[in-house]
Amino acid sequence: MECKADSPAREDVFERIFHPRNVAVIGVSARGNVFGTGIMNALAAIGFEGEIYPVNPKGGEIGGRKVFRSLEEIPGTVDFAIIAVPAERVPQALEECRLKGAAGAEILSSGFSELGTEEGNRLEQEIKNIVSRGIRVVGPNCFGIYCPRSGLTLLPGPDLSRQSGPVGFLSQSGGMSIDFAHIGKWMGIGFSKVVSFGNGADLRETELLEYFRDDPETQVIAVYLEGVDNGRAFLSMLKDVAARKPVVINKGGLSEAGSRAVESHTASLGGSSRIWEAVIRQCGAVQVGDLWEMAEACLAFSLLPPRAYENITVAGGGGALGVSACDTAEAFGLKLPMLDPGITEAILSVLPRPGSSARNPIDAANPFVGPDAYREIFLKAAEDPRIDLQVLVQLVYHYQSLSKAMGVVSVKDVVPYRELAQVSADVAARTGKPIVLVLPNIKQGAESMDIEDMNREMRDTFLGKGIPVYDDIKKALRAIGHVSRYYARRARTLR
Amino acid sequence: MECKADSPAREDVFERIFHPRNVAVIGVSARGNVFGTGIMNALAAIGFEGEIYPVNPKGGEIGGRKVFRSLEEIPGTVDFAIIAVPAERVPQALEECRLKGAAGAEILSSGFSELGTEEGNRLEQEIKNIVSRGIRVVGPNCFGIYCPRSGLTLLPGPDLSRQSGPVGFLSQSGGMSIDFAHIGKWMGIGFSKVVSFGNGADLRETELLEYFRDDPETQVIAVYLEGVDNGRAFLSMLKDVAARKPVVINKGGLSEAGSRAVESHTASLGGSSRIWEAVIRQCGAVQVGDLWEMAEACLAFSLLPPRAYENITVAGGGGALGVSACDTAEAFGLKLPMLDPGITEAILSVLPRPGSSARNPIDAANPFVGPDAYREIFLKAAEDPRIDLQVLVQLVYHYQSLSKAMGVVSVKDVVPYRELAQVSADVAARTGKPIVLVLPNIKQGAESMDIEDMNREMRDTFLGKGIPVYDDIKKALRAIGHVSRYYARRARTLR
Repeated sequence: MECKADSPAREDVFERIFHPRNVAVIGVSARGNVFGTGIMNALAAIGFEGEIYPVNPKGGEIGGRKVFRSLEEIPGTVDFAIIAVPAERVPQALEECRLKGAAGAEILSSGFSELGTEEGNRLEQEIKNIVSRGIRVVGPNCFGIYCPRSGLTLLPGPDLSRQSGPVGFLSQSGGMSIDFAHIGKWMGIGFSKVVSFGNGADLRETELLEYFRDDPETQVIAVYLEGVDNGRAFLSMLKDVAARKPVVINKGGLSEAGSRAVESHTASLGGSSRIWEAVIRQCGAVQVGDLWEMAEACLAFSLLPPRAYENITVAGGGGALGVSACDTAEAFGLKLPMLDPGITEAILSVLPRPGSSARNPIDAANPFVGPDAYREIFLKAAEDPRIDLQVLVQLVYHYQSLSKAMGVVSVKDVVPYRELAQVSADVAARTGKPIVLVLPNIKQGAESMDIEDMNREMRDTFLGKGIPVYDDIKKALRAIGHVSRYYARRARTLR
Repeated sequence: MECKADSPAREDVFERIFHPRNVAVIGVSARGNVFGTGIMNALAAIGFEGEIYPVNPKGGEIGGRKVFRSLEEIPGTVDFAIIAVPAERVPQALEECRLKGAAGAEILSSGFSELGTEEGNRLEQEIKNIVSRGIRVVGPNCFGIYCPRSGLTLLPGPDLSRQSGPVGFLSQSGGMSIDFAHIGKWMGIGFSKVVSFGNGADLRETELLEYFRDDPETQVIAVYLEGVDNGRAFLSMLKDVAARKPVVINKGGLSEAGSRAVESHTASLGGSSRIWEAVIRQCGAVQVGDLWEMAEACLAFSLLPPRAYENITVAGGGGALGVSACDTAEAFGLKLPMLDPGITEAILSVLPRPGSSARNPIDAANPFVGPDAYREIFLKAAEDPRIDLQVLVQLVYHYQSLSKAMGVVSVKDVVPYRELAQVSADVAARTGKPIVLVLPNIKQGAESMDIEDMNREMRDTFLGKGIPVYDDIKKALRAIGHVSRYYARRARTLR
């Protein structure tokens, strides 16, 4: 949709939508577990920065907040509204928002074109008609907007992070948006904005992509799509945006049955998988197979310096791990070059013998090789000018038996994870070659919660120093590979 | 190696190796953290069923056990020996075992052909010479044998399960063997035997595969290979074995750098990835990309009835999950057929509206849909004669906020997981169509250990009823796809 000449500048409209001074929540109820009350409580819980105005014709009070009988009754302007009333009452609510001068509204209600019924289609058309008279809409049939800076949150996201970050996510699916926001919280991905646009009666993929392109808070763009409204416009925009910022795309509904699911889910038309894959690649975007791969790629794009990583080292204990690392690396376009014999010898001098090897991968053989040895290993390996990045694999579970043998209470007391994080950060800064940590957990039994706990603390410690952490070597290398290929391509295109 | 006419029957030899009445551990020490003492303590900790005889020329006592100065000093016969002395002393120790009449020995020590040195090769040749005079050897440079029934365990495996099961695993890599044994323990995979054969100076892939083929305790065979000794013999054996029991193979070292890692790891020669993949497929074996995929496939082969599963349903809350389920299914050779309108209507009658859909995937829309509804859903969907198997996806984290809202202490008190497991088992038994559970965990933060704990208890509860559990829909469908294609192929071949 084009901005009309006499309408306010789009930046201003989006500013009022993402960082509203106040939000009207239409469809709260003192009784029952309704969506409106849920989102209102979520806004309060996450600490939304502006005013919250609950609206219900019955008036009264909910959770200590005065309930307004109508939009009109609210004093002053309303920047943004959240609509969660039954579908048939949505158009009227939206019209009231428009009359009140709201910049936009998110419509959480379902019961529109996704039903495939005449009534559903008619109601969605009514929304479009109101939009054309001057209000922007996210939804219907969506989970809304999450913006850590302002404290807007998704349904049901009372416990999402308030920490902003470089990743903007636009998602046709509400489930994907809330899942990704939760995954990002612990995986170490900070979000600028997440927009679940559902049926996309107004705002949807192409315009949101353009917004993220121009948004200075967004440096990495993630997209979950089931189908597009206007393929040509979208692809042209995608090509333009991907030349400036990495765009990571997951396209759902690429199978026959998937298309059927998409239809009932967000009323979109899918498309053949091969065509999509080829087209997305041609646009220079990064294609991923599922939400997990998307999150892992976004983490790497967020934390790794923006460049190609052709040659890497992999260091850790356990030889087969090294073997699988090598095999995996090549599949993702990365190489583990054989290190110079002088460097190999220098590394071997700090490793236990026999059993270790250091031609690359660097197999420390012993899981208890400590931070000082790894400092030497990293520094020596970084002397090879070909090496762009180093991967460290740590199997913390080995410390469990050590802590038991030593009569120590917790495995946290014997794993030198803080020192290892410090060494990794120091070496990465000194050499300019980033380090990535891999923490596989092969003991996930009910009796090994201590290892899970340890791994999570270790992950947070490394993330706190800007080091990406993965739980599997394959995932780590796949993510690094995405970053590397994206920047390699961009360098070629700009040349 | 062929059995000589005058040597004891191979079954008897293997019986004494896997279920020894006693084990001599050569290379224990009262001081220092040596491998020999480690494996002796591990045998004691796991509750090895036979006698343990520590051996060290210095004699004395370790952990309340008399240390024998030599093999000879041990009264009576010795069935099996574990050798963990420095490489140069291994041949003599092995020769003593042979003279004592041991059926076999595992050599944990490294420092042989994997070094690529003349000395290493010479020592390994000495081992082969002794083998030819009449003792079987596992190793050197390995982690040995794990046999839950007898209580033999890997280095360092004091806490592996004593529960036997259908899966036999033979691994060139020690790290892979201990990792797989640990993963199996919580993932629900029971082992008949695990053999880490390292450099494979005597027993290795082909003969062990034959042994597993004939072993009545082994129903599913898993193989981690880096290279084979005699390709022709191995492939001929593989074809023969795969026609009788599923063989799941992971081949490491298929890349250039991987081959190099393999060389330092187990002194094998790798091979081109394309050739291997084609050949393994032609043999009717199941090829997997890594250890995780191998474990997931073995779980499905262990718990699902042995047949092809062409058509499945996927049920759960969260529409995008359904979409990704469909897309993934087709990639693994499975279909989600559109259910009959009558069945769809019947299922919708027990689901919240609007938001839900039931054409397949079955999107319950609400994560709190309970066991009674799922019983109806499963029973109704099973009425479609095309459906072979049903997948249930549960996002337990939603109950976290519910438990908080209800003021309940633990999320375990609000998730009806026992009832859901009972319903799933009942329906699977009644319909003859197995159910597979998927438990994704999108909240893996340090503050959400309660969800991890809940998921693990839920997993154990379902596994206890013979229901396979995965943490990701893609992994579940990939594993089911492996089972399905294996049996479909076998049916075609036998026809």
